[in-house]
Amino acid sequence: MLSRTRGAAILVIGDEILSGRTQDTNTGYIARWLGQIGIPVREARVVPDIEAEIVAAVRALSGRYDYVFSTGGIGPTHDDITADCMAAAFGTGIDLHPGVFAALSARYASMNIGGFNEARQRMARIPYGASLIANPLSAAPGFQLGNVFVMAGIPAVMQAMLEDVRRRLVAGRALTAVTVSVFLGEGAIAAGLAALQKTYPDVPLGSYPFSRDGRFGTSLVARGNDTARLAEVREALATMVRAVGGEPLVEGAG
Amino acid sequence: MLSRTRGAAILVIGDEILSGRTQDTNTGYIARWLGQIGIPVREARVVPDIEAEIVAAVRALSGRYDYVFSTGGIGPTHDDITADCMAAAFGTGIDLHPGVFAALSARYASMNIGGFNEARQRMARIPYGASLIANPLSAAPGFQLGNVFVMAGIPAVMQAMLEDVRRRLVAGRALTAVTVSVFLGEGAIAAGLAALQKTYPDVPLGSYPFSRDGRFGTSLVARGNDTARLAEVREALATMVRAVGGEPLVEGAG
Repeated sequence: MLSRTRGAAILVIGDEILSGRTQDTNTGYIARWLGQIGIPVREARVVPDIEAEIVAAVRALSGRYDYVFSTGGIGPTHDDITADCMAAAFGTGIDLHPGVFAALSARYASMNIGGFNEARQRMARIPYGASLIANPLSAAPGFQLGNVFVMAGIPAVMQAMLEDVRRRLVAGRALTAVTVSVFLGEGAIAAGLAALQKTYPDVPLGSYPFSRDGRFGTSLVARGNDTARLAEVREALATMVRAVGGEPLVEGAG
Repeated sequence: MLSRTRGAAILVIGDEILSGRTQDTNTGYIARWLGQIGIPVREARVVPDIEAEIVAAVRALSGRYDYVFSTGGIGPTHDDITADCMAAAFGTGIDLHPGVFAALSARYASMNIGGFNEARQRMARIPYGASLIANPLSAAPGFQLGNVFVMAGIPAVMQAMLEDVRRRLVAGRALTAVTVSVFLGEGAIAAGLAALQKTYPDVPLGSYPFSRDGRFGTSLVARGNDTARLAEVREALATMVRAVGGEPLVEGAG
């Protein structure tokens, strides 16, 4: 078994992602947002709208990482089963939340779109013991249960919910990155990069091929939370690139 | 434990996805491509460039699903460890593949970009017992080991490799979808949709909110491989939408 690991996992829930109908962008957004407050994302999973699958993933991820961020499945339709699955995963019950019910009831009473019907009432179902996550856009809240933050799948709503999550997280030192790009293939700088990785074992170095204006190149990225150390590594990367005949393009954070 | 499941899983390998630096698009592409030949994607995972994580994910997914499609980590740099991890996951060895070595050697000899150096030679490391997956774009091949198809992370290369994978798959009936959209919120059609789901339990129905030109609406999607049945469901969806006061926009495949 894999050991308990510091950091976060992301759990994307929804058939529409697995069918390729919808392009997930929440994973990247959450990852960058967490990186800015020093919490690395260690794993991401996408699971279908099937209770056993969601429950198993929640248990696996919440047992292993400090935090889990889920997106999707908290709307009013029959395939929105995330809240029930979270309750099942944590072995707790679920029922209509009086405060949420009242707030949503008032909201829908003021809108001429069919009222606070039974389907919309489903969005007031919150597991026992959960704390709410505010939804400033469309009112129906997310919730936190244990170390799992349950958020909407719609990107704008998810992003707004994250702002209410921030105060609950123990932030680390912000993770930043420096990038040195060069119009050379990965194979031309791989040996130099590997040597630098041995010199700076504490700074993960990555290598990412790109194509710009028809020219191929490689971005070398150093990540960490010690900006002085990253500046030193950036200089070392630029020196290495020159040594193999390349012209380093220092791109700051990236 | 979750039981063995028909269908495929996708395994995306790379720190750059988990940091949010790179937006994964391979998952959606593979999912749509597999859907066209009738193989549903049941799960997707993103793991970092860490051997224990990759090995554990490969074992979990290859033991549970018919096929696993991995992307990333087969380039020439020190963080490209996928081939070694696949060998470890399957308990087999790995070494330079003579045919691949010869082909890459000839390719790099003809290009003025530093020759077939030690880093590039890493791309000729193929696990014992693997069959190669052709790479018509940049020569360095992917490979199939057991039920796992190991492909590049660069989208254009991955897409080209898939063409060489197709003949190895046992295709099902193509999965298609019909979509009925309406400028109503999910909550207005949820009850009707749930009732239809009970009438057509064999056809998964999904509901996806959208915003177009500042107007909010919902797309109702029915999926399956029986086009006559889908046409019937499409009519039923349109009738249901009209019954709650909406104007159905039938959008065919989607």
